[in-house]
Amino acid sequence: MEVGFLGLGIMGKAMSMNLLKNGFKVTVWNRTLSKCNELVEFGATIGETPAEVVKNCKYTIAMLSDPAAALSVVFDKDGVLEQIGSGKGYIDMSTVDPETSTKISAVCTGFCPYPQAITSKGASFLEAPVSGSKQPAETGQLVILAAGDKALYEEVIPAFDVLGKKSFFLGQIGNGAKMKLVVNMIMGSMMNAFSEGLVLAERSGLNPSNLLDVLDLGGIANPMFRGKGPAMLKSSHSPAFPLKHQQKDMRLALALGDENAVSMPVAAAANESFKKARSMGLGDLDFSAVYEILKASKE
Amino acid sequence: MEVGFLGLGIMGKAMSMNLLKNGFKVTVWNRTLSKCNELVEFGATIGETPAEVVKNCKYTIAMLSDPAAALSVVFDKDGVLEQIGSGKGYIDMSTVDPETSTKISAVCTGFCPYPQAITSKGASFLEAPVSGSKQPAETGQLVILAAGDKALYEEVIPAFDVLGKKSFFLGQIGNGAKMKLVVNMIMGSMMNAFSEGLVLAERSGLNPSNLLDVLDLGGIANPMFRGKGPAMLKSSHSPAFPLKHQQKDMRLALALGDENAVSMPVAAAANESFKKARSMGLGDLDFSAVYEILKASKE
Amino acid sequence: MEVGFLGLGIMGKAMSMNLLKNGFKVTVWNRTLSKCNELVEFGATIGETPAEVVKNCKYTIAMLSDPAAALSVVFDKDGVLEQIGSGKGYIDMSTVDPETSTKISAVCTGFCPYPQAITSKGASFLEAPVSGSKQPAETGQLVILAAGDKALYEEVIPAFDVLGKKSFFLGQIGNGAKMKLVVNMIMGSMMNAFSEGLVLAERSGLNPSNLLDVLDLGGIANPMFRGKGPAMLKSSHSPAFPLKHQQKDMRLALALGDENAVSMPVAAAANESFKKARSMGLGDLDFSAVYEILKASKE
Amino acid sequence: MEVGFLGLGIMGKAMSMNLLKNGFKVTVWNRTLSKCNELVEFGATIGETPAEVVKNCKYTIAMLSDPAAALSVVFDKDGVLEQIGSGKGYIDMSTVDPETSTKISAVCTGFCPYPQAITSKGASFLEAPVSGSKQPAETGQLVILAAGDKALYEEVIPAFDVLGKKSFFLGQIGNGAKMKLVVNMIMGSMMNAFSEGLVLAERSGLNPSNLLDVLDLGGIANPMFRGKGPAMLKSSHSPAFPLKHQQKDMRLALALGDENAVSMPVAAAANESFKKARSMGLGDLDFSAVYEILKASKE
Repeated sequence: MEVGFLGLGIMGKAMSMNLLKNGFKVTVWNRTLSKCNELVEFGATIGETPAEVVKNCKYTIAMLSDPAAALSVVFDKDGVLEQIGSGKGYIDMSTVDPETSTKISAVCTGFCPYPQAITSKGASFLEAPVSGSKQPAETGQLVILAAGDKALYEEVIPAFDVLGKKSFFLGQIGNGAKMKLVVNMIMGSMMNAFSEGLVLAERSGLNPSNLLDVLDLGGIANPMFRGKGPAMLKSSHSPAFPLKHQQKDMRLALALGDENAVSMPVAAAANESFKKARSMGLGDLDFSAVYEILKASKE
Repeated sequence: MEVGFLGLGIMGKAMSMNLLKNGFKVTVWNRTLSKCNELVEFGATIGETPAEVVKNCKYTIAMLSDPAAALSVVFDKDGVLEQIGSGKGYIDMSTVDPETSTKISAVCTGFCPYPQAITSKGASFLEAPVSGSKQPAETGQLVILAAGDKALYEEVIPAFDVLGKKSFFLGQIGNGAKMKLVVNMIMGSMMNAFSEGLVLAERSGLNPSNLLDVLDLGGIANPMFRGKGPAMLKSSHSPAFPLKHQQKDMRLALALGDENAVSMPVAAAANESFKKARSMGLGDLDFSAVYEILKASKE
Repeated sequence: MEVGFLGLGIMGKAMSMNLLKNGFKVTVWNRTLSKCNELVEFGATIGETPAEVVKNCKYTIAMLSDPAAALSVVFDKDGVLEQIGSGKGYIDMSTVDPETSTKISAVCTGFCPYPQAITSKGASFLEAPVSGSKQPAETGQLVILAAGDKALYEEVIPAFDVLGKKSFFLGQIGNGAKMKLVVNMIMGSMMNAFSEGLVLAERSGLNPSNLLDVLDLGGIANPMFRGKGPAMLKSSHSPAFPLKHQQKDMRLALALGDENAVSMPVAAAANESFKKARSMGLGDLDFSAVYEILKASKE
Repeated sequence: MEVGFLGLGIMGKAMSMNLLKNGFKVTVWNRTLSKCNELVEFGATIGETPAEVVKNCKYTIAMLSDPAAALSVVFDKDGVLEQIGSGKGYIDMSTVDPETSTKISAVCTGFCPYPQAITSKGASFLEAPVSGSKQPAETGQLVILAAGDKALYEEVIPAFDVLGKKSFFLGQIGNGAKMKLVVNMIMGSMMNAFSEGLVLAERSGLNPSNLLDVLDLGGIANPMFRGKGPAMLKSSHSPAFPLKHQQKDMRLALALGDENAVSMPVAAAANESFKKARSMGLGDLDFSAVYEILKASKE
């Protein structure tokens, strides 16, 4: 199978490498073209521009750093739009940060011409944000949240099977971003529940390390508690997922709930604690830093 | 090693059987003595009364159904108190339901004479509630939350090693119950976070089954979501842990937080949703039934 | 003093009448011109179009029903823009419903060319939403929340003194709408606090009518509790301020808080109860209907 | 009419003086008897002991500083119990602080023999906590929340008419304290709503003094906002009602809600903010100090 690949950042490089190692013919492009060289050693072809990649490939995957980049490769000179057309498929796997979510929502409601532009040219489009970071990208263990053109989804399953441990087709455009928001909302509430428990344990005369151990042996054991708990107890919150981004996702999830008249009191309470953390200057730390807000005491 | 064992309900029978199979000499007693017979086949000795068991054994473990039973075997005629004394150890592993928690707290503050009575006789005492139900009891996979006499804890570790996959010594009497409350509080908040997410997914046009799958592949995957999620989506909430008990545990955990001036807005919000569920007549269903409250809509 | 007046709905008619009775020369315009006649009897002059009013008057006040109307009188053919210019002042007193708030915010951030258009013509602009409905409009008892051009504000104080019992100059454009949102947020939280108290009284065996009386004699007595309480106890919620609009205001206030990193857990909790009420189909009733949600019980 | 009066603290002195001025014959007693002298000048008779007062008067009112004092005058040597009996009435108007509430609740459930003791002697009993402090006591403007014996209530109405601007008969013993809790819960939530609004105003670029003025002109204007607002903006929180007592009342009101399965998310959120304030060392300040918690920011 032959695919184009736009964007060779940390994620994109790992993903295109994976495709190459699994026998795909890959035409790569990156804004800084020199980044393509390492992939050429593994058999990749270079496309000079996004337009050229799209011209040469039936399917083009994009994995770009942010919404601006995602829009730029499509609309700018020598961009995707110049060559996209009937019979071609475009798959945007760019990470769904909150800004992208907004953008994609906007897309759905017609404010932004991006996939419309692509589909109006007769091509098919798939949004396919992923869950998972560098390591899962390298090992093909991503979770792929695809939405848009079902036929295109089925055609590119061979690529998704290489890139991820699991892919989902979630329906109409926007559903990938929505799914990500729902997951992150649950995660944010859980982080608050966890932090409250740790603080309660400490202040009630229990050893919070024991709590971590007890939790990890029971029915609510999960990788997040296991991975972040010990660092939290040392007040170490180096940012894997910055608190300000988590809070934005909570806000967007609550906004989605508002649209659909869904009352979510726990998420709302969690959001207010994240906001408090932001106002106390913790927004750039990991979202586990909400623990510091709950712990603060002068007693 | 030789131990007495009081109470052969579902849990007690499985636990004493485990001890026998692992080479312990066990003297058993049960209110309905006929229940002892099956264990005799595996080598157990019968004690006619709690007093007799205590007389014959250096260490006596109790695993009783409720606080009333736990108090009764100690204080009633032919009870533990009649034979307990210097050099003997008493380990109460009765399940910490919310009522027991209250009782044990009361014990700590001197309202209730139970362990005091035991220690005033010169014996040593350990509370050791467990996390885990029938199956972990049968397979020796319980988690043991012990508190009280440290020396006694160390002496009975061989028994705990047989009964549980892990045991903790948590300090002074009451800490076992407190730890259970903290864990259950986190669990209750998580159940609310999970339910809110499921409802948000449904009302936003996502397939909530997909959400279950996506959650189970990520950093917050946990046995509770995996185990209860599919049934919840079918509005099936057969009671493993009744909602009214979960809500009582939330209340007691919040009260513990109040004592120690710990602000826990997410737990407080979760508690109010559980209370709403109670007021809507869902208290006897599984605590996952809070999902129904969040889902209720006329739109 | 001479003023133009655009819009003779319930509010605008009462306000322009007030101006006339207090000796102002008023040139009136209304989309349905026949509505002007009654005012002519009291001495008003008719302007055939918004443009004509602006041409003839140094100051023009607009009091229109909604944002669409407010924009239309400015931008449409024969609109304000055609005659507005240096030395003239335009005062938009249209009621700040949530949509207008949004619009006015948009104005501030440049999405919408409305006051910019006016000020770019060399004229000065004031937003001046009011608090108070029909009766205060008739009796000159409005509260005026003005923002924008300070000099213009001072020039038109004689008119504001007639129209309102009090006017405020709140600074830059948008502050009028923001002030309204803050007030409505406090009001929404109070309505929830009040409703929770009424339900608690009823379910605890107290007579909630007694609670109304006790409240009205104490330090938190206020016109809203007094005015709405008795109807609420009869589950009568005829819409003075529809719940769905109150909830939108809560959402917008919370969004304003989010922008400024202000944690507001009580407002957030109140908002979720309003959302629940919306989802149960109570959005078109008065916002006091949140009481029904809190009261709902099967016990 | 002739009444006994036990307790001449700030409240008791003002109240008994009021009775004297309105033509009542009053027999007074105080632990420090010298405090009686001033009242003697106005016509009071001194009783040497509570027992003597009760012996000489058909009705005896008590207004004592705390539950310990309230119990002491009844049960101690020379106490009320020694002379109370058939045909006599005892009215305890001692202020309902949270401790008294608890005590009175205990009374109802039989833990404490206090009114039972009185009624078992054939006498009748009324709890009648008041709302209002020194000044309303002096001017006869208290609000009286009576509960217990209805016939006794009706007999002593002439006294209540002198002492209060309004008295309520609320049914069974405990209802006076409950009513006070419900009112204080609403008040606590309102204080949070108000504080959140003030902080939002400040951080959104509005002048919070303007907000105070706008609020005071509208439908939610109330004495508490008017009285406390200006001091709050100066971070002045001299304790009229200490935050830790307000928080205890919130907790007790929430506990009352829990008993009756009433979900109160706004009160619960307010309680958590008060708890945070307590943990930050603000418990002895006025309950308006919750504003400081909401305001705290490093941005």
